Amino acid sequence: MTVERVMPTAEARDLLELVRELIAKEVAPRASADESAGRFPREVFTTLGRAGLLGLPYPEEHGGAAQPYEVYLQVVEELAAGWLAVGLGLSVHTLSCFPVAAYGTAAQRAALLPEMLGGEWLGAYCLSEPQSGSDAAALVTRAVPGADGYVVDGVKAWITHGGVADFYTLMARTSDDGGRGISCFHVPAGTEGLSYGLPERKMGMRSSPTAQVRFDSVRLASDALLGAEGEGFRIAMAALDGGRLGIAACAVGVAQAALDAATGYAKERRQFGSRIADFQGVGFMLADMATQIAAARALYLDAARLRDAGRPYGTQAAMAKLFATDVCMKVTTDAVQVLGGYGYVEDFPVERYMREAKVLQIVEGTNQVQRVVISRALTR
Amino acid sequence: MTVERVMPTAEARDLLELVRELIAKEVAPRASADESAGRFPREVFTTLGRAGLLGLPYPEEHGGAAQPYEVYLQVVEELAAGWLAVGLGLSVHTLSCFPVAAYGTAAQRAALLPEMLGGEWLGAYCLSEPQSGSDAAALVTRAVPGADGYVVDGVKAWITHGGVADFYTLMARTSDDGGRGISCFHVPAGTEGLSYGLPERKMGMRSSPTAQVRFDSVRLASDALLGAEGEGFRIAMAALDGGRLGIAACAVGVAQAALDAATGYAKERRQFGSRIADFQGVGFMLADMATQIAAARALYLDAARLRDAGRPYGTQAAMAKLFATDVCMKVTTDAVQVLGGYGYVEDFPVERYMREAKVLQIVEGTNQVQRVVISRALTR
Amino acid sequence: MTVERVMPTAEARDLLELVRELIAKEVAPRASADESAGRFPREVFTTLGRAGLLGLPYPEEHGGAAQPYEVYLQVVEELAAGWLAVGLGLSVHTLSCFPVAAYGTAAQRAALLPEMLGGEWLGAYCLSEPQSGSDAAALVTRAVPGADGYVVDGVKAWITHGGVADFYTLMARTSDDGGRGISCFHVPAGTEGLSYGLPERKMGMRSSPTAQVRFDSVRLASDALLGAEGEGFRIAMAALDGGRLGIAACAVGVAQAALDAATGYAKERRQFGSRIADFQGVGFMLADMATQIAAARALYLDAARLRDAGRPYGTQAAMAKLFATDVCMKVTTDAVQVLGGYGYVEDFPVERYMREAKVLQIVEGTNQVQRVVISRALTR
Amino acid sequence: MTVERVMPTAEARDLLELVRELIAKEVAPRASADESAGRFPREVFTTLGRAGLLGLPYPEEHGGAAQPYEVYLQVVEELAAGWLAVGLGLSVHTLSCFPVAAYGTAAQRAALLPEMLGGEWLGAYCLSEPQSGSDAAALVTRAVPGADGYVVDGVKAWITHGGVADFYTLMARTSDDGGRGISCFHVPAGTEGLSYGLPERKMGMRSSPTAQVRFDSVRLASDALLGAEGEGFRIAMAALDGGRLGIAACAVGVAQAALDAATGYAKERRQFGSRIADFQGVGFMLADMATQIAAARALYLDAARLRDAGRPYGTQAAMAKLFATDVCMKVTTDAVQVLGGYGYVEDFPVERYMREAKVLQIVEGTNQVQRVVISRALTR
Repeated sequence: MTVERVMPTAEARDLLELVRELIAKEVAPRASADESAGRFPREVFTTLGRAGLLGLPYPEEHGGAAQPYEVYLQVVEELAAGWLAVGLGLSVHTLSCFPVAAYGTAAQRAALLPEMLGGEWLGAYCLSEPQSGSDAAALVTRAVPGADGYVVDGVKAWITHGGVADFYTLMARTSDDGGRGISCFHVPAGTEGLSYGLPERKMGMRSSPTAQVRFDSVRLASDALLGAEGEGFRIAMAALDGGRLGIAACAVGVAQAALDAATGYAKERRQFGSRIADFQGVGFMLADMATQIAAARALYLDAARLRDAGRPYGTQAAMAKLFATDVCMKVTTDAVQVLGGYGYVEDFPVERYMREAKVLQIVEGTNQVQRVVISRALTR
Repeated sequence: MTVERVMPTAEARDLLELVRELIAKEVAPRASADESAGRFPREVFTTLGRAGLLGLPYPEEHGGAAQPYEVYLQVVEELAAGWLAVGLGLSVHTLSCFPVAAYGTAAQRAALLPEMLGGEWLGAYCLSEPQSGSDAAALVTRAVPGADGYVVDGVKAWITHGGVADFYTLMARTSDDGGRGISCFHVPAGTEGLSYGLPERKMGMRSSPTAQVRFDSVRLASDALLGAEGEGFRIAMAALDGGRLGIAACAVGVAQAALDAATGYAKERRQFGSRIADFQGVGFMLADMATQIAAARALYLDAARLRDAGRPYGTQAAMAKLFATDVCMKVTTDAVQVLGGYGYVEDFPVERYMREAKVLQIVEGTNQVQRVVISRALTR
Repeated sequence: MTVERVMPTAEARDLLELVRELIAKEVAPRASADESAGRFPREVFTTLGRAGLLGLPYPEEHGGAAQPYEVYLQVVEELAAGWLAVGLGLSVHTLSCFPVAAYGTAAQRAALLPEMLGGEWLGAYCLSEPQSGSDAAALVTRAVPGADGYVVDGVKAWITHGGVADFYTLMARTSDDGGRGISCFHVPAGTEGLSYGLPERKMGMRSSPTAQVRFDSVRLASDALLGAEGEGFRIAMAALDGGRLGIAACAVGVAQAALDAATGYAKERRQFGSRIADFQGVGFMLADMATQIAAARALYLDAARLRDAGRPYGTQAAMAKLFATDVCMKVTTDAVQVLGGYGYVEDFPVERYMREAKVLQIVEGTNQVQRVVISRALTR
Repeated sequence: MTVERVMPTAEARDLLELVRELIAKEVAPRASADESAGRFPREVFTTLGRAGLLGLPYPEEHGGAAQPYEVYLQVVEELAAGWLAVGLGLSVHTLSCFPVAAYGTAAQRAALLPEMLGGEWLGAYCLSEPQSGSDAAALVTRAVPGADGYVVDGVKAWITHGGVADFYTLMARTSDDGGRGISCFHVPAGTEGLSYGLPERKMGMRSSPTAQVRFDSVRLASDALLGAEGEGFRIAMAALDGGRLGIAACAVGVAQAALDAATGYAKERRQFGSRIADFQGVGFMLADMATQIAAARALYLDAARLRDAGRPYGTQAAMAKLFATDVCMKVTTDAVQVLGGYGYVEDFPVERYMREAKVLQIVEGTNQVQRVVISRALTR
């Protein structure tokens, strides 16, 4: 069943059409093999950049497409349905560009955004550390201010694109004042003192490297600072609001792909003389999957429209991330069930979807952190 | 927490404001007492009619307000949050007017709609029978065509407003040709041969009578027929698509009311030296409730916008009904839990919300029927 | 489907047979009418006492039956299936006798147990207060020691059998030393200064009065003290371990009754030309209900066998209470769904089961308190 | 937390102690590495056989240990907690021996059981085919009877130990009479015409080969037939009842291992200044996991005791399989969540448990098939 989308403009409708074609030709066909081999598809991101898809929600001045989040996120969803490593990669990249785009000076924007949005540079976002995950404000990586810039020491953990990114958006401590002592920096790959851990051996998303990024007396010039000193935590949280919507969109994409595969199988597979789709035991499962996905999509789009309307949307973004990723985990697990033994083997992509789903409940704030965010908003 | 609504027009925003005031003054204050007493608030519907709220989605020509479903349903939601019997009553009334508005001749529309939409007449919708609930096409009530009209014999069951309505929109069999042998009729209360069973003793919604409606050689003139002979099942199904969205909106309203009550209590009640809202065991429950409600609201609005855009929306309506009512059942059950013993007694409205929630999983197609509708759409 | 029970002895098998007959004749036939009327069936407890069922787990010396908890609880389960007010009443009564039986002196046991276990006296258990529910150790009712006994002032809340009991087992504060300042007392009904609130207007269990019990300068003799001064909280917690198993057994009984009703209906009701039991949409729901009930029964019996073997069983009891009551809530809600409209009306007992189920998630430690107990045991 | 087991005999208690030691020394330490490498631990089964663990529920006459199922299954559970491939391997092996032990002639039992139960021979069970999974009675592999035995042609699919087993217990069609046309055979590895597909590339259980087993004019002597001609389907179903309990025990083992890992982590990991175990958001999750596992264990033991008592237990076995494997899927998924990023990588075994869990919902009758079995028993 094709997803019924009501796009806000004809341009957006065309854009989505283009994206679907690009996915069918350049993205989806490689996904399973590259996932098995653990091969990172760097060149796909170059292709996306050249097609104008790496700067969708950013201003046109520096190469963006000035699309509303409502549109950008549906592009992420479609890409994630084709290959999560690419959809999530786009979301992480967009997040990594956010501090420059939203808090950078005119000079920083002019210097950095064209390559960021054009596909030349791929970004990574360095917030988590081995001892500070959910409690991000407890980070200990230090950027010590000196005469002509900063010296950074510390270790960042769980960094998507760690070791393959072209730039790292870094949150580091410039003073001991808790959340208010954190600042945001732009760090190009290749800077001296920067090194990377081995890629984590993950349950899924194996084509997309996740690694520690280590800063060993890394010297940054003064203009590496994005926003004001001490503003980093606020920037990081603002970036995460958008990033959470990206994860929600990814989750809906993966879940939709799983539903489509399960539905296709259930229409073909026969047992006891009927299509298994015609047994309510299977049909009702598919109906529940489709319903949950439709609700998740409606919820993230709702949050996106709040953002696009300039209204507060952080709580809605947390809800969308929580709900969509829980749905994705359940739907992909049930999709494997629909295929039975065939769902458990690599001949079908469904087992991959299930392995991919799990990471989405964890990244950019575990679903427990989302519940903290939501319950605080409700009960303050 | 006030619900953040993005309304399509300033007029709609004002309308909703008006509705909230009317609810606060005329609806909510009476709900608990009338529910305990089983007293039907007929005059509230007159008030709604005079305020222009009984014909919201219908054309202005005959007294409607020509509002999109997106707006109409949010009015239903707010009313249901104040008092389900009123919100659901409005939805049932709107459903009962649909065949006249959408399939009636110009003469029928001119003759009937003004009183229907103005609050003079309250409607009921007669489809179910004792032996045909989910299998509506199996109904056996007959309307035998004669020289100058029809003679109707049979029993309709589970009729909301049965015995208190001013008109009954009736589905009856005019031939033996299964679903194609059903026709739709307008039957004014007071027609000879029409009688009513005792109101059912229900778990909740006790202020709103549900009763059998019996047709004993009821004579109808030819112009009682709405649409063509044999078109009744199609009309009924089209009416139900809209009606299901009404139920979804009711479910979101009741769930929101329950969440608000639980949140309010959790912010006041202290145990172990803290607000219970500050224990994650309670706070996460509230967060999940809020998230589910937000998803349910986004889903029914999404379906409504499809309808407003003139696109097929039946599957989405079934999803919205299924999802929102399941959410409502879970949220209201959990809301009682948040209040503990206080949730189980009539001093707070929360136990009422839980009793009300259950009926929503059953009416206008049980949630099992919704799953049949959705799975057929998915796998055909 | 009759429940397959493996009873430990032939005697126990006979006992259960007797109980089933007694339920069929004396208990079940009155349940619906007395619930609707809110009439407390005091005489049923006399009947149970004369049949030897009020002292099942207590020693034979004073009129008990010396049955293992494994057997006692299955009697509670069967009674609760027939009428929760009776099954739960038995559990509360057994709980109320526990301090005398387990901590009383030989004189106290000889003086009190014969009437307690023989059906002459019905008990109530006074622990909760308006401001201390989950946080029982925060109770403020005081028993001030004096020359010849104690003077008690305070208010107890949510007391099952409040106003109809013959004795009240009371937890009151004899010093300010937190949990260690609480003592346990035996208070006969009729003691001067004892009064009762109006029965709470509850969602279900309306035949069983729940009321405040107020102590206004109530004088108790020294020998009203059960156990040592300051031992009350420990006694209360020990009593609750057993009480929680009683609630678990009640929950299984109510759930089984709901399943039986739903199964019976699903085998009779026909739609679309088949028994609705033969649609997997219904059949799988019944299968899940039966499975959950079987697991809940196995879990409480497992905990009971630990208790019977003299091993620690508090964590298992908390698990059994949590699991069985959550199952009961879900199963009864689904049972209403299987009956559709017929499930929502008082003509069938299923809506009553659903209303009854909810209280079980709340009493003798809300299910949130059970989770606290279990998680502490796991992670200490 | 050590699992509290009430074993029926001191001998059984000692046996379980022995098993735990053997697991700690010989099984658990190799699991992760062998799973990553996809290396089948054939020699572990030899070790198990020599320790007397391959014939636990079979008579002592031919090398069994004559243990009740209650004991045998707890051994399976512990092994599965250490390494699912071994626990499940034991269950499959036990299943494969069942037709010889229960339906074989004295000669067959004497000839085959000693090696089967002593660890020399490892078994596989050939029932499923590419086109007949849930609908086992539709199998098409044929055993054509001839002068001096049978000639077998066909393909069996999803065979655990396919290609590494020493004997194959085969269900093949000897007549066209549906379920009544199936017979059971013993086929030694090495028989001419027997060949194997490549091992399936599975999401988990990678150390345990699952492969097609192909029969190409395989000649079997007359005494390869186990039981009577046409009795195969009945044998297969009886074998599956026991096999399902084995899967239930495996599921409880894997879930317990996941809970233990999550609990251990939650007690060590600190965020926001506390052990994460002390946040109710995590603590309640652990409590729910532990409760579900306790219920699953109690349920399979309950079914086992029915079997041990010689009473019908097929429905209870289906319930135990359904419930325990659904619990295992949920618990392992939540265990990954407790560890966050650390749960998603191979440094901890938790992601492996989650991948393993999924297969248990599928094998020996998908959980949909179990629901069919249960609902039929309920509603016939």
